[in-house]
Amino acid sequence: MTQALFVASIEGDEAVSDVLGEFWRGRFSRSYVMLERAVQRGELPPLLDHDAVVEALVAPAWFRAFVSRLPINEAFRRRCVGNALVMAGKR
Amino acid sequence: MTQALFVASIEGDEAVSDVLGEFWRGRFSRSYVMLERAVQRGELPPLLDHDAVVEALVAPAWFRAFVSRLPINEAFRRRCVGNALVMAGKR
Repeated sequence: MTQALFVASIEGDEAVSDVLGEFWRGRFSRSYVMLERAVQRGELPPLLDHDAVVEALVAPAWFRAFVSRLPINEAFRRRCVGNALVMAGKR
Repeated sequence: MTQALFVASIEGDEAVSDVLGEFWRGRFSRSYVMLERAVQRGELPPLLDHDAVVEALVAPAWFRAFVSRLPINEAFRRRCVGNALVMAGKR
């Protein structure tokens, strides 16, 4: 279902693109709860840009899985987590 | 053409996925020439991971354009360039 919507979106269906964007932004915003809990525990400084943190984790993996097909290995995962911590102001 | 291949790839066509991955990796490796020239001019330190630099520029924009549909604005572009410079060991 998500795959079919994604295909329609890439094929230029604007209405589907809008719905899919809304779906993903909704998914992201639910993950912000986890980030806010880490802030409350003092594990992260107060966050200015939740999207930047989540994107650092998610966008490169999507890109490797669907575009470049470069390996998603341990070094890659460590880099993504490191970048997310930078985006969270932790490093 | 690229769009049709991309759709076939997402729909699970492994052969198309492999070809498309090869295409993208070829495109990336040509952009490495620019990075190497910057190294030769002394503008970047010698690069260990070209993929990391190019991905920092490309993957988030791809993700916003095709998945989250979040705005690709000035702040976003600055963040991506900043991340690419970090990946290049410049910051």
